[in-house]
Amino acid sequence: MPKINAERLISNLRELRSIGAEGTGVVRPAFSIKDMEARNWLKSLYEDAGLEAQIDGIGNVLGRSRNSGPALLIGSHSDTQPTGGWLDGALGVIYGLEVARALAEDPTTRHLAVDAIALQDEESRFLGCMGSHHYCGLLEPGFEQGVVDKDGISLVDAIREAGLTEAPRLQVDRERYIGFLEAHIEQGPHLEQDGLQIGVVDVIVGLRGIVFTFEGQQNHAGTTMMAGRRDAATALYEVAHTINQEFPKVAGDRSVWTMGRVNVSPGAPSIVPGYAELELQFRDRSEDVLDAFTALAHKIAEEVNKRGGASVTTENSRVKISPALMDDNLQKHLSAAAKAHTSDHWQTMPSGAFHDAGVISNVLPCGLMFIPSIDGISHDFAEDSFEADIIRGCEVFADAAASILLEATTG
Amino acid sequence: MPKINAERLISNLRELRSIGAEGTGVVRPAFSIKDMEARNWLKSLYEDAGLEAQIDGIGNVLGRSRNSGPALLIGSHSDTQPTGGWLDGALGVIYGLEVARALAEDPTTRHLAVDAIALQDEESRFLGCMGSHHYCGLLEPGFEQGVVDKDGISLVDAIREAGLTEAPRLQVDRERYIGFLEAHIEQGPHLEQDGLQIGVVDVIVGLRGIVFTFEGQQNHAGTTMMAGRRDAATALYEVAHTINQEFPKVAGDRSVWTMGRVNVSPGAPSIVPGYAELELQFRDRSEDVLDAFTALAHKIAEEVNKRGGASVTTENSRVKISPALMDDNLQKHLSAAAKAHTSDHWQTMPSGAFHDAGVISNVLPCGLMFIPSIDGISHDFAEDSFEADIIRGCEVFADAAASILLEATTG
Repeated sequence: MPKINAERLISNLRELRSIGAEGTGVVRPAFSIKDMEARNWLKSLYEDAGLEAQIDGIGNVLGRSRNSGPALLIGSHSDTQPTGGWLDGALGVIYGLEVARALAEDPTTRHLAVDAIALQDEESRFLGCMGSHHYCGLLEPGFEQGVVDKDGISLVDAIREAGLTEAPRLQVDRERYIGFLEAHIEQGPHLEQDGLQIGVVDVIVGLRGIVFTFEGQQNHAGTTMMAGRRDAATALYEVAHTINQEFPKVAGDRSVWTMGRVNVSPGAPSIVPGYAELELQFRDRSEDVLDAFTALAHKIAEEVNKRGGASVTTENSRVKISPALMDDNLQKHLSAAAKAHTSDHWQTMPSGAFHDAGVISNVLPCGLMFIPSIDGISHDFAEDSFEADIIRGCEVFADAAASILLEATTG
Repeated sequence: MPKINAERLISNLRELRSIGAEGTGVVRPAFSIKDMEARNWLKSLYEDAGLEAQIDGIGNVLGRSRNSGPALLIGSHSDTQPTGGWLDGALGVIYGLEVARALAEDPTTRHLAVDAIALQDEESRFLGCMGSHHYCGLLEPGFEQGVVDKDGISLVDAIREAGLTEAPRLQVDRERYIGFLEAHIEQGPHLEQDGLQIGVVDVIVGLRGIVFTFEGQQNHAGTTMMAGRRDAATALYEVAHTINQEFPKVAGDRSVWTMGRVNVSPGAPSIVPGYAELELQFRDRSEDVLDAFTALAHKIAEEVNKRGGASVTTENSRVKISPALMDDNLQKHLSAAAKAHTSDHWQTMPSGAFHDAGVISNVLPCGLMFIPSIDGISHDFAEDSFEADIIRGCEVFADAAASILLEATTG
């Protein structure tokens, strides 16, 4: 079996970290100067690895093996959160590069086709998982018109500034690929808490959201009697607390729900609030549970509405993600490699966070693998993983990739 | 009995309105150029009415009758909210002036002593009811050091800009006064809703507040399971909703409570909130009910604390006002005059809002009278009252003042 070069792996990860480094973190949002510097650096490393490399018109960097298929596509995203950690995305991108190199360097696997990819804007400066959505043909032509970031900078301008306006835009070659593999840090505490070294993802959980809007009557908090009030906050507290009481009754064992955005207006202690907003977000591996949560949330709002205080309206959030199943066969190979390298200290697990594999699973079989995050911290400068976990993860990943490709070419 | 001059009353109110007018409202916060212009205008009207007038070092304008006591002090405040209505405070100030003139013009009452006053900064640019607090000797010498408004302008500078640094500061002459009378718009809907023309206040309700602080653990809303969460918002919703469920069980018939200030941090739909704040404010005429609310709020917080999620701490708000009882004898005179002028369309009622009379009741017997507010609107440019109600209110007020003074001088 192929051997990864641990020193090269760690050295490449550190070099990528240095592009946009701030303290222990990285600031490299999609299409920033540092992001494009990282993409050009990756392109040259793909070339050094013998891959045909290009940056496409949307910023995706593809390193294509000169071997014919069946091929495996391996990678993740190289853009970061506005104040991101050094491994979120970067780990999977460098794993893809290292696996391509390791297989090319081994006589038993050098005939196999591994393509490496660094996708663009997973972190949603403009559009979440924009690179994978575009690569999979899931965006309408001209989708970029009118898309702006939170500072009002347009995607069209960002692409122009990056010098990509004229660059061809790649779309996935569904004939060539037998699947897509992505590695990622867990971004949660489960592996670490359970003393495990690898997680093989069976499903990326689905996500939905509901925005509750409460309209009441703003009034003086001293002179307006309780019976005459239509207090928007009172209705909000009832909806929110009732959701926390009722959701467990229909939840799955890994369901989560969060009401993290609240706005009570005008927000003064002496004024009866006339307006309020509450955003509920919930995730589960099963569409049935997501449907049950949706129905229950609407029912709770209706019941509070009937009380005749402030009126409640509900609107489904713009963001809605269906649960994404990972491919059974790819899981089988990842699990076998994980078992071999960890003395069976691994598990099958859902992914609570979304990833590019969730998009690409619409068009290709996908496999997603986690390594432990120290203290479960992510989207933070403090994000980190132990070097031993990083190296072991790449060994598992390379073995799984080799066995998947060997099975496909000899099977 | 004395007769007020309705035309002069309305004309003075409109002239005062014109100083700092913006649309239908008034912008005349304490010590602003317009506020000082209004105070100088009042001083000259006090002088025209035969009163000895001065603006003291804190901005209070006093017009002292040349008659010897027993005297009645009548007035309110002439400063406004940052975007205030035209009658809040102004009504009571012009009533004081008009009553002084009406009594001076009538042969049966011209020997009586009515002093008129326009107090400073009731609306809390620097310190709520600062003028009445200072006038009653309730502020420490040098209290103004370090006091700033919301824009960081110091009270010391504001007094200097107003040219008052060297002006003597007046304190109430407790020997001279048999009481203080204040008239005010209701700022609530009760009189209008009940078809009443005058409210005689028996108590200015007390007010307390509690700030709840929730400390949990900020986390990724996808990867942190419900059982492992310490969600600050979840604890907040439970405390708030439980308060709304439990407070009615210990409330009086006019108790009010409000939770109008909420802060959930960091406030993103995908992040489990690690920190939250909730401010509860409650009012009642009885200290016993305020005590019961306080105890219950702390008990609810303790119970949520015991659940072991986010931790809750409680702190009593800086603002705490004891219920202020109005004087029985002054109420009796106001009630008799109200009855005579309204065909018995008046009522005794508590004041849900605070007023200078609440401060002055610490040192003098006080009487407080309301006229109806159109739609109960106040602290808003739209604040208004019908002219017939304004005129009738002043007639009631003048009759009550005359009978109080006549009783005191002949009794």
